[in-house]
Amino acid sequence: MTVTALNIDAVRQAAHRIAPWAHRTPVLRSKFFDQRTGARVAFKCENFQRAGAFKFRGAANAVLSLTDEEARRGVVTHSSGNHAQALALAASLRGAPATIVMPAGSAAVKRAAVIGYGATVIDCAPTLAAREETAAEAVRRTGGVFVHPYDDARIIAGQGTAALELLEQAPDLDVIFTPVGGGGLLCGTAITASAVSPRARVIAGEPTGADDAQRSLAAGEIVPSVNPQTVADGLRTSLGELNFPIIQKLVAEILTVDDTQTLAAMRLVWERMKIIIEPSSAVPVAALLANAERFAGLNIGIILSGGNVDLAALKWD
Amino acid sequence: MTVTALNIDAVRQAAHRIAPWAHRTPVLRSKFFDQRTGARVAFKCENFQRAGAFKFRGAANAVLSLTDEEARRGVVTHSSGNHAQALALAASLRGAPATIVMPAGSAAVKRAAVIGYGATVIDCAPTLAAREETAAEAVRRTGGVFVHPYDDARIIAGQGTAALELLEQAPDLDVIFTPVGGGGLLCGTAITASAVSPRARVIAGEPTGADDAQRSLAAGEIVPSVNPQTVADGLRTSLGELNFPIIQKLVAEILTVDDTQTLAAMRLVWERMKIIIEPSSAVPVAALLANAERFAGLNIGIILSGGNVDLAALKWD
Repeated sequence: MTVTALNIDAVRQAAHRIAPWAHRTPVLRSKFFDQRTGARVAFKCENFQRAGAFKFRGAANAVLSLTDEEARRGVVTHSSGNHAQALALAASLRGAPATIVMPAGSAAVKRAAVIGYGATVIDCAPTLAAREETAAEAVRRTGGVFVHPYDDARIIAGQGTAALELLEQAPDLDVIFTPVGGGGLLCGTAITASAVSPRARVIAGEPTGADDAQRSLAAGEIVPSVNPQTVADGLRTSLGELNFPIIQKLVAEILTVDDTQTLAAMRLVWERMKIIIEPSSAVPVAALLANAERFAGLNIGIILSGGNVDLAALKWD
Repeated sequence: MTVTALNIDAVRQAAHRIAPWAHRTPVLRSKFFDQRTGARVAFKCENFQRAGAFKFRGAANAVLSLTDEEARRGVVTHSSGNHAQALALAASLRGAPATIVMPAGSAAVKRAAVIGYGATVIDCAPTLAAREETAAEAVRRTGGVFVHPYDDARIIAGQGTAALELLEQAPDLDVIFTPVGGGGLLCGTAITASAVSPRARVIAGEPTGADDAQRSLAAGEIVPSVNPQTVADGLRTSLGELNFPIIQKLVAEILTVDDTQTLAAMRLVWERMKIIIEPSSAVPVAALLANAERFAGLNIGIILSGGNVDLAALKWD
């Protein structure tokens, strides 16, 4: 069965499709954050997802949506981050070849992980044009299926399965926070919440140094990120074409935070919850902390999007 | 009801007693560790326990075992580490005063946590003699009840509740690993396993630089640690009097690992499981990894004892 429309049925189909591969990640709670915010916060731990981020949900849904003939030819994408690892793992589980275009400067640890999953890595210059051109060339050469990191209905439907689980695990949410980069997780979450729990408002956290989503909503059209500057490396991308109108229609609000707030929130989660999240995941946590008075007394869900931090960059005194 | 003997009934009573206060911590699994070891490993996440370590179980049991009159006078202990925080929190929950003797050089973050729970901190010189003397003086002055970190039946019974939960969450364990310092967690685990799941062998991991438990078992008498050297700061203590004969009788084996193995294991857990554990918790993980061929095909439980790492000591490149 293939996705014919991007709606809650597509999300439910994705959940069914990826169930044998993806983890049903736990929801954790923290007395500290409840006290600090005055809310009751359910943290959906996608940092425990396979390949370390929610991205595996969309990638698995895309790979499992391929026909056998398509799977034989394989998948292609360009990514320096979690989508690269996720797609490489999903392809390897189906026994399909994967070609991942990675821009120069990608973290060695991520490159190693992609290769570890058996994918072919092709280097390119670190520009969007070079990435797209190199990927298009790989598609021509391999006959593979291009799987965009977020501007793709299969991906969006897959990412929506995190919220579907969250709303089973914590049914009475008033608000769901996600980060926003290209909009895959945010759109999947908004589609799911609007169908399953319409009273739950969906709010995104976005870095001030890459606030294209907030500016796009204000402008009524996509305003791409130009030279984004943020420690949240997963959120530097601009909104996708498919993503923008869904966000316009279903997302309540975008709250921005600066990197100082993000890193402080990340450290609080490490220290108080004893879990490792990456900076992108800390952005919605920081957005909640910065606006806590508005959310006091509410049931809040936060999707902690991933935990892929390069620990080699950490030194101990 | 008070503990009259140190056996499984005492552990079950402790579990009942602390249930309103302590977290039932989750068990996590990791494909990576299963593949790496060839075993099926259940990680009992006491790093998610209140105050960040299993120590809260024993402390809560001790505080809840006090008569009202004793509780009014309060509790006293000496500790630079997790027991200090755990006892301070447990006392605060009962509204009982706590006096914690902390040796000079204790981490500022732990000191701050103890004070944050409302306890009175008394400084002393960093020697065992000074700690014991200062604590005895505090008992005389306050009339409080001394609660030893591990050489105490209430503490041992409380620590045994972690294994009690683990054996409900993962019933078919062949082996349970814990770290060993003074022997509180190890004894509680051994008492519980021998009664609830006698086929489960209990094995401790111990740092080579503080291997008094292994040497004590070999000698047939307590051989105290002299100038222990290990990064596993929770495991520098010597076995307690109450603990040693229980370990002799019920513990299958002590496996030692050096600090390099411990830190490598800790990093693997952070990186692959996205959870923060402290070095002491990594010792049994390292012991399993170093002896994996012996445990292949078995169901293994590991109690991850705590997650209190001073993140201020971490720097990013």
